[in-house]
Amino acid sequence: MLKNDTLIRALLRQPTSYTPVWLMRQAGRYLPEYNATRARAGSFLALAKNPDLATEVTLQPLARFPLDAAIVFSDILTIPDAMGLGLGFAEGEGPRFEHPLREEREIRALTVPDPGRQLRYVIDTVAQVRKALAGSVPVIGFSGSPFTLACYMVEGCGSRDFPTVKAMLRDRPELLHHILEVNCRAVIAYLNAQIEAGAQAVMVFDTWGGTLAEAEYRECSLGYMQRIVEGIRRERDGRRVPSILFTKGGGAWLEAIAASGCDAVSLDWTVDIGAARARVGHRVALQGNLDPEVLLAGPQAVRDGVAAVLASFGRGSGHVFNLGHGVTQHTPPENVAALVEAVHKESRAYH
Amino acid sequence: MLKNDTLIRALLRQPTSYTPVWLMRQAGRYLPEYNATRARAGSFLALAKNPDLATEVTLQPLARFPLDAAIVFSDILTIPDAMGLGLGFAEGEGPRFEHPLREEREIRALTVPDPGRQLRYVIDTVAQVRKALAGSVPVIGFSGSPFTLACYMVEGCGSRDFPTVKAMLRDRPELLHHILEVNCRAVIAYLNAQIEAGAQAVMVFDTWGGTLAEAEYRECSLGYMQRIVEGIRRERDGRRVPSILFTKGGGAWLEAIAASGCDAVSLDWTVDIGAARARVGHRVALQGNLDPEVLLAGPQAVRDGVAAVLASFGRGSGHVFNLGHGVTQHTPPENVAALVEAVHKESRAYH
Repeated sequence: MLKNDTLIRALLRQPTSYTPVWLMRQAGRYLPEYNATRARAGSFLALAKNPDLATEVTLQPLARFPLDAAIVFSDILTIPDAMGLGLGFAEGEGPRFEHPLREEREIRALTVPDPGRQLRYVIDTVAQVRKALAGSVPVIGFSGSPFTLACYMVEGCGSRDFPTVKAMLRDRPELLHHILEVNCRAVIAYLNAQIEAGAQAVMVFDTWGGTLAEAEYRECSLGYMQRIVEGIRRERDGRRVPSILFTKGGGAWLEAIAASGCDAVSLDWTVDIGAARARVGHRVALQGNLDPEVLLAGPQAVRDGVAAVLASFGRGSGHVFNLGHGVTQHTPPENVAALVEAVHKESRAYH
Repeated sequence: MLKNDTLIRALLRQPTSYTPVWLMRQAGRYLPEYNATRARAGSFLALAKNPDLATEVTLQPLARFPLDAAIVFSDILTIPDAMGLGLGFAEGEGPRFEHPLREEREIRALTVPDPGRQLRYVIDTVAQVRKALAGSVPVIGFSGSPFTLACYMVEGCGSRDFPTVKAMLRDRPELLHHILEVNCRAVIAYLNAQIEAGAQAVMVFDTWGGTLAEAEYRECSLGYMQRIVEGIRRERDGRRVPSILFTKGGGAWLEAIAASGCDAVSLDWTVDIGAARARVGHRVALQGNLDPEVLLAGPQAVRDGVAAVLASFGRGSGHVFNLGHGVTQHTPPENVAALVEAVHKESRAYH
């Protein structure tokens, strides 16, 4: 049994006495203890692939702040790495695959990784985190979206507009859809394994769907996320496992995302959460969406920012407080403390 | 008198017999004749600063394609260059200022350039283009938005998330607003001078407003664009001079942009134009929004893309066909020909 099920209740739009809060990338480089553990591991990937150390860093922010959820420490690109593409992170750069998909035969040879084998380290981390939390708060599992995985798999690294992916969509759409199809089945198997191991909610991160035209977004990104929402386990131990979809830059498509069948839509910082609620709030919970930049200012600016987001969402259930993107590296931890405290304190008036 | 005033009529949502079309960056590197003229000039900036050559390249796409408008060949960053910041373009890179704003005294010393002096080359180009067109089609004048200018002025170059600008907004908002205030007055003077010289419509390009949170967007970008719309000449020679606002990544804020008083809102490719029309089409004309990537495919894909955008907008006036962003370098000119022909032919059924 969960001692604090505020997050789950809010994701299901059930009444709560305050607005729950967790932060994307809440375990990360802004915490000195994270940097110490990472130094022991040797690298980001070595840390993510070591369940003991990954569990340790997952729990670090919860030791400092009374957050309402843990999110398993991992990366959005574990699936293509498990497919053999060779994920790496050069110091100070984004992710890069050693073997991006260049040849049709490589694409046709893609197979769905077995989460219990090639992704065992993530599943073990979920189980260890769940055990260590001892029901204090829920643990969230996650994956990159099929389209976002495909972006990195085809391009090999991050990009402003992913020309190689767009060219494939244009010239060989059946090849891109083959990748998306395999990715979709892989994400379903992966999230189900995380749920099986103890994840009490799951989130799909669609970092690059926002670079597409609307029709392409529906076809290449949202359509597959909808299949994920339909394909994952809805319940575990008699409790519903809520699903959260996050498309960065998807503010114009909120109605379509909310119609996917997901329980909650996560918003980036560009959207006004009150306007978003007016558009879709009767169908889904909303998560977000303070600009992570605000955490670089002082505690008073953080409190003002929290107050503005809470006021914009307004009264009633269905809001999970979060940032519009991940916590950035140079965030002072005391500002995160101020944020969590302000959310817990100020949100009571809205419930 | 304009022989072809279809663009102006569509921008004012008056009836037309077909949908007018022009393309952002229609004079550019995809045209061999442009590259030849640019080679003669020596560089992009030398070309932009030479009214004879700038007029030549402005007219080149109109000699090839029956476009419904010319847009003066220039850059969105002419104003900060005229302020003395030293615009430059390294080969294969984006714009970069030699003297970005670093010190408060530099910011306090900013002054509004006199369009007739420091920006004379643009004003002369507008006048020459207008004369050369001899009333065949209108010429569009343009500027970067105050916020987009400020992004480059403070950051010094393009960036994914403009950390220096965001830090100034956070720590010294009064300084950023001082820059925006000067930029706003500069854009008004600049666009009025272009109208005076013959521009028959004007467009403001807000390339980076879409990186802001909604409240910041309203305060730092849209608010100043609204002042521009209010501050520019509405009429010239007894004809209304329509204004077009374009915020890349602004799809979630269309209602607010449409409420600014502008005549038309330009859409990037991520938005469905039919959905946009349903949201705001009763207040403004809409411009856009085929994905420029489609022009890299074959003529049939271009025709299909055109048909989809026309069908999505649907029947009636108030649509100016364009891309959702500029024509890219490797676009085959024959695809642009196919686009213009398809718009002119297929749109008649909707009028």
